[in-house]
Amino acid sequence: MKAVGVIVEYNPFHNGHAYHLQAAKELAQADLAIAVMSGNFLQRGEPALISKWYRTRMALLNGVDIVLELPYRFATQKAETFANGAVTILDAIGCHSLCFGSESGDISSFFETVDYLDTHKERFDEKIKMNMKSGVSYPRALSLSFQSLSSPENILSLDKPNNILGFHYVKSIMQQKISILPLTVKRKNADYHDEHFATETIASATSIRKALFASKKENSSIEQYVPDATSTLLKEYLAVYGHFHEWENYWTYLRFRLLHMNPEELREVYEVEEGIEHRILAAALDSTTFKEFMQKLKTKRYTWTRLQRMCVHILTNTKKTDMKITSETPSYLRLLGMTKNGKEYLNKYKSQFSLPLISKLSAYKEDEILLDIRASRVYSFGIGNQTRERLLQQEYKQPPIYIE
Amino acid sequence: MKAVGVIVEYNPFHNGHAYHLQAAKELAQADLAIAVMSGNFLQRGEPALISKWYRTRMALLNGVDIVLELPYRFATQKAETFANGAVTILDAIGCHSLCFGSESGDISSFFETVDYLDTHKERFDEKIKMNMKSGVSYPRALSLSFQSLSSPENILSLDKPNNILGFHYVKSIMQQKISILPLTVKRKNADYHDEHFATETIASATSIRKALFASKKENSSIEQYVPDATSTLLKEYLAVYGHFHEWENYWTYLRFRLLHMNPEELREVYEVEEGIEHRILAAALDSTTFKEFMQKLKTKRYTWTRLQRMCVHILTNTKKTDMKITSETPSYLRLLGMTKNGKEYLNKYKSQFSLPLISKLSAYKEDEILLDIRASRVYSFGIGNQTRERLLQQEYKQPPIYIE
Repeated sequence: MKAVGVIVEYNPFHNGHAYHLQAAKELAQADLAIAVMSGNFLQRGEPALISKWYRTRMALLNGVDIVLELPYRFATQKAETFANGAVTILDAIGCHSLCFGSESGDISSFFETVDYLDTHKERFDEKIKMNMKSGVSYPRALSLSFQSLSSPENILSLDKPNNILGFHYVKSIMQQKISILPLTVKRKNADYHDEHFATETIASATSIRKALFASKKENSSIEQYVPDATSTLLKEYLAVYGHFHEWENYWTYLRFRLLHMNPEELREVYEVEEGIEHRILAAALDSTTFKEFMQKLKTKRYTWTRLQRMCVHILTNTKKTDMKITSETPSYLRLLGMTKNGKEYLNKYKSQFSLPLISKLSAYKEDEILLDIRASRVYSFGIGNQTRERLLQQEYKQPPIYIE
Repeated sequence: MKAVGVIVEYNPFHNGHAYHLQAAKELAQADLAIAVMSGNFLQRGEPALISKWYRTRMALLNGVDIVLELPYRFATQKAETFANGAVTILDAIGCHSLCFGSESGDISSFFETVDYLDTHKERFDEKIKMNMKSGVSYPRALSLSFQSLSSPENILSLDKPNNILGFHYVKSIMQQKISILPLTVKRKNADYHDEHFATETIASATSIRKALFASKKENSSIEQYVPDATSTLLKEYLAVYGHFHEWENYWTYLRFRLLHMNPEELREVYEVEEGIEHRILAAALDSTTFKEFMQKLKTKRYTWTRLQRMCVHILTNTKKTDMKITSETPSYLRLLGMTKNGKEYLNKYKSQFSLPLISKLSAYKEDEILLDIRASRVYSFGIGNQTRERLLQQEYKQPPIYIE
């Protein structure tokens, strides 16, 4: 059986995802699709709208056959680390190819760009350093440096978010000499960051979330942009848990933590650097909402995403030392769910997987998975006291979701 | 001007306190009464029903002339440390005498008991050690050991809570050779721990709090046991902040903290010892209320009070190292409020005080006061998001309360 891998967040699963998944299977001529999906906290430093279990069900009902969790250690990181984690997992479970969406849509440009930047690494790094000195954020310095190199024709536009991710997937595959074939599908219409609906049926996850929060729990406004299964599961989530998860739900807990930390303790948290701990502590004392807090922190030097990721690590008590004791690439495959087809694949090939497959949490207790457990515990504080128990205990009791 | 000192929590101020205060002033032939009062967290390891500012107003409207805060470092401790802190403060502000309520009511029995135990220290300590080995709590071992000594006639009954506190006040005065005259007034009727109303007008603070929480915010049921000022201020507090403070209000925050701590981190917290960190973490995962959590923790070895104090230190992030870097006796006098009479005293004698008098927080930033600030910040999470700001900012902006 030939498996194509996809790297996803599905926050939530929408028509654009369905299109990409279908195209990926066709392009790769695959018998099944395996998704490595971020857990409860995402790459942009946000809690997922709904739990990883519900997002797993969405994925399985919409054409994915196996869902594996991208561990917290990789899911809440900059593109390079995120990509390394995800690619390693797809390799370990035996994917033949990886297919990602991109603004470019041309896989050869990814290879050429990786090659080109590798050859000009020194000059490139120097330019980045120079640009950083002018006070801009790292992604901005990257983009500026890239533009200033006199680059060949078929080079990627690295100021598009999906091109950047794709670049890191391809780079990771090439550098780690992984035998996965990278493929790309041109994204349809909606830009990742779009807050407005772009076409009749395709909209970005950002605009869908925005509409969900704006309409105060009614999700009729998004129905044309998502498959039925998404619509049904979103309604069910609200019925069961009462809330979607967003940063404001966690603000009181983040603030509580910050108000009894001292600068030295805060500096122990992963990604808190360069003296920002003092600004964080002062802002926490004076802000009554997360938005207000973030606006007080924002400067040219830090992207919103980087600041949000910092906040996730503070919220989950993830220290620099926690990240250090875990390995540089994933050490397990955590199975969140599978279809009948996926189960067949697992049974057939699991003896060949290069990492242990975890389907029951209690069976595995290494440091790396402790970060995932902690993240799920913290995630459960985004809903009310009454429904928290169910979400909290699920981390331990939920077997992988199975859909026939 | 002759000042008598009292050591109080006023949680809340009731008729028994009024009686004691009046008796203290008469017995000491004092021109004014100075109270050293616990801040927002109390000796039994509980949040105070209402903030220290409201309790200061209660005190000033009921006959106290100066209110000083007993720092967190001493207020949330076993009787000996609590006593050392309070007595040092009363000495530093020039009190001529200290008058405490006790079950005994006979001051000579306190002197004799301190003397007697000092003389028989070795034998006594040995007995305590032996009793501890049988698995009982320290206070219980103390009481058992004491009973087993063949003691002279005029000795205190050390199984009464106010006798124990008084014993430590007198012991602290004698050992530190402080020139304060200890006086005692026999407590009227109500036992400290009584949960039921005992007489027509005197009831314990415990029973008053119980009635307040049982009646769901209506405080008509307690009016006969408290002065009018208490009744008015309790009503005002509810109108302003919406809640009285109790442990259950903090449970979600305590649990949040515990659910992302590991045993090593928890062991750094003050008073967390002997491997109890594992039981604490397991209980936190399985308890949905503070009461349930405490019931899971309780054993013969730990008193309820000791466990609650541990919880306060976890909640406020007070580590063993935090307690170590602060001094063994208080290093400042924090003025919470005064009457006209109190102000006159302060103006007249402040050049003679042996510790700095702090009336504005921003003027003083030593380690010890940081624990008080942190405690007040954490305390503000016991009420809703809407009203928290007022309570939170008060710690910095509130000048000492002045009542003419």
